[in-house]
Amino acid sequence: MRHTKISDMECPIARGLDRVGEWWSMLILRDAFHGLTRFDQFQKSLPIAPNMLTRRLGELVEAGLLERRRYSEKPPRDDYVLTDKGRDFWPVLVAMSSWGNRWFAPEGVSSQLVEVATGRAVDPILTDPVNGRPIDGTHYHFAAGPAASEAVRRRLDFADRHREKTHG
Amino acid sequence: MRHTKISDMECPIARGLDRVGEWWSMLILRDAFHGLTRFDQFQKSLPIAPNMLTRRLGELVEAGLLERRRYSEKPPRDDYVLTDKGRDFWPVLVAMSSWGNRWFAPEGVSSQLVEVATGRAVDPILTDPVNGRPIDGTHYHFAAGPAASEAVRRRLDFADRHREKTHG
Repeated sequence: MRHTKISDMECPIARGLDRVGEWWSMLILRDAFHGLTRFDQFQKSLPIAPNMLTRRLGELVEAGLLERRRYSEKPPRDDYVLTDKGRDFWPVLVAMSSWGNRWFAPEGVSSQLVEVATGRAVDPILTDPVNGRPIDGTHYHFAAGPAASEAVRRRLDFADRHREKTHG
Repeated sequence: MRHTKISDMECPIARGLDRVGEWWSMLILRDAFHGLTRFDQFQKSLPIAPNMLTRRLGELVEAGLLERRRYSEKPPRDDYVLTDKGRDFWPVLVAMSSWGNRWFAPEGVSSQLVEVATGRAVDPILTDPVNGRPIDGTHYHFAAGPAASEAVRRRLDFADRHREKTHG
């Protein structure tokens, strides 16, 4: 077994996961998108132990997804506010939520994405901004970028050969 | 602290995370989308200990995201193949990959989504399939669904009040 830290892996999914790849971190971000900013608000919302919440908030600040804004000096208290990098995580949360609702809500939907103006429920799709086409696995795939190592190229070449074998 | 299992939480994000909320699980799914199906292929691709890989593959089978297909009886060997539920996780992986590339690839992009026909790199956006609009946080939000409990309604009401305070 090679001893690679996930943050050292070249894959953008691995690097993203390294910043939020823990249940609580992603649920804290969810709450931050709902407007929660304070320690006691997060604690009320999530069934998480206080020391764990402190640690996860600290990690999200360190990763640059939340920033602290002091709102009280005595006692010292901070708001935790989404940064641009944190706000940009929104599509991942929305995609995860839609997937969860499609497959893991046997008793019905408890929380769903809706259009604000009409209240209509929305099951969003990923599209190509250039031509509006849906990002399916047939017309789109992952390919090596300019900074790819030999190992990444080999992995993606394998995927290409497999695809030709299956569809070609 | 309340002792709630994450799978008992009502939130679709929490329920989705419960199935894949572990680094390795999501990277195994990534490799499955690349066409990998066999234990030794996953092991070659991921810096993960064999016993951990066995456990994660078993969890993904149990969660219904991968299924085993016996390809050898002596010795007994299985392919691990994406189910419909597993294939449907694609948008989450793509969204995570784009986010990772936008923020955590300082030395350049090593793996990216491209259009197969042209090789053009694509930074996908989430859109509303009914009207083609991008899913931003202004025109779209999370709202209580038919099966929402009082707790979920309170959380989403808080988000609504916060939104009015900020934008209203």
